[in-house]
Amino acid sequence: MTLPLIESHPDALGGLDPAAIANCIDECLACIRACTVCADACLSEPDPGELAHCIRTDLDCAAICTATAQILSRRTGTTGVLDKLLQACEEACRACAGECERHATHHRHCALCAEACRSCEDACRQLREHLVGR
Amino acid sequence: MTLPLIESHPDALGGLDPAAIANCIDECLACIRACTVCADACLSEPDPGELAHCIRTDLDCAAICTATAQILSRRTGTTGVLDKLLQACEEACRACAGECERHATHHRHCALCAEACRSCEDACRQLREHLVGR
Amino acid sequence: MTLPLIESHPDALGGLDPAAIANCIDECLACIRACTVCADACLSEPDPGELAHCIRTDLDCAAICTATAQILSRRTGTTGVLDKLLQACEEACRACAGECERHATHHRHCALCAEACRSCEDACRQLREHLVGR
Amino acid sequence: MTLPLIESHPDALGGLDPAAIANCIDECLACIRACTVCADACLSEPDPGELAHCIRTDLDCAAICTATAQILSRRTGTTGVLDKLLQACEEACRACAGECERHATHHRHCALCAEACRSCEDACRQLREHLVGR
Repeated sequence: MTLPLIESHPDALGGLDPAAIANCIDECLACIRACTVCADACLSEPDPGELAHCIRTDLDCAAICTATAQILSRRTGTTGVLDKLLQACEEACRACAGECERHATHHRHCALCAEACRSCEDACRQLREHLVGR
Repeated sequence: MTLPLIESHPDALGGLDPAAIANCIDECLACIRACTVCADACLSEPDPGELAHCIRTDLDCAAICTATAQILSRRTGTTGVLDKLLQACEEACRACAGECERHATHHRHCALCAEACRSCEDACRQLREHLVGR
Repeated sequence: MTLPLIESHPDALGGLDPAAIANCIDECLACIRACTVCADACLSEPDPGELAHCIRTDLDCAAICTATAQILSRRTGTTGVLDKLLQACEEACRACAGECERHATHHRHCALCAEACRSCEDACRQLREHLVGR
Repeated sequence: MTLPLIESHPDALGGLDPAAIANCIDECLACIRACTVCADACLSEPDPGELAHCIRTDLDCAAICTATAQILSRRTGTTGVLDKLLQACEEACRACAGECERHATHHRHCALCAEACRSCEDACRQLREHLVGR
């Protein structure tokens, strides 16, 4: 439903592809969902102290994805802000994916979270290449 | 992917149905998405002053759904907090849906947003009935 | 600076006391700050597993205070939503304060966080009494 | 109270100045507060359509400051993420300040918001210089 929503907005997208925007919003939301559950699941594992860095990258990633999904939903037109936020988001997704992948064989929630982060990292990079290439 | 994620958590759900939790998280995220786009789309309509209440109910609804999706992702076990937050979320969704429905024939984004809000309102009510009925 | 800000808004407050609104926004922000730091500080303590419930009540409280501070900053006028959200916020603050107080003698961050939560709990209750009593 | 809170965390700050961190968190929170009220106040002005860009930069700035305040409250140690997020935050504050300054003589809320944004922009830049200079 995201694409029809994006297309229902009366403003033009300034050359950006509505499907790329819709996809990036959806990946951010899926990443928030995975990171928030993974952080809490890590806390319930037998030794949460060993997963402290994972919990932190999860929470950081969810926080930045929340901002990114919001900014992408508005037509503010400040591409400098968007470009830098997408870089931060891509980097946060990469950091969280890298950390979760270390625990993916032991914890199913880390495997699922790593997947969501890699997918969101890709969506951010693609959208940013599109943004810069205009 | 939400249900496998919920089921990957090592803690029990205290009698709550994992599918109902997963569904409510997804409805909250879809509602955040619709409300955030709708608020911005309303701002671009010819007379945003007439849509000021709609923009406000959109932003309020997105803010409460953001908190609700997060709380539902954790196993804190404070059912009093969850019960009251679900009530607030249900009420915010109802208020936003009611306002968006008034503009649904003129603005496609309001029609889509009303749909997302009604669906989230239902998910919150169902989960709360489940919570209270345990 | 919060009161002048609240008073710079062109809309009336519908009988609510601007100082009580300003105070509740400030308490929510102070509570977000304390809870977010306390959750992360708990993660760095020697046995974070024993503080898992504290980390969860911290994060839940921060999430609900974030929504509350936002709703209080808008003049949406949906008092049913505000009333229920203030109840949820008050309850989340009480739960977090109660948990942090258990660790307050051992961890300074828990003592500071409990203080911020109790203060926010009071501000929410006072504002809600004011809201209901109108 | 922010500095004692930052200093109550058991982890070291990796060479970052606790007072600069505390200041940047406080500026972000003050900026969220100003931007959220300003956006809503703009909506109540006689011609909100003329203030649509201001409302958008307000909401974007509040969203990014929310993420920044959270990341600064954790000791994740991913300086690449923090550096890019601080750049995004600084840019969002600058964009919002610049827009609010255009309306500052007519709207007191825009004047107050511009002030909060400039102050947060400075705090982000100073912290980032500190981060890069280590």
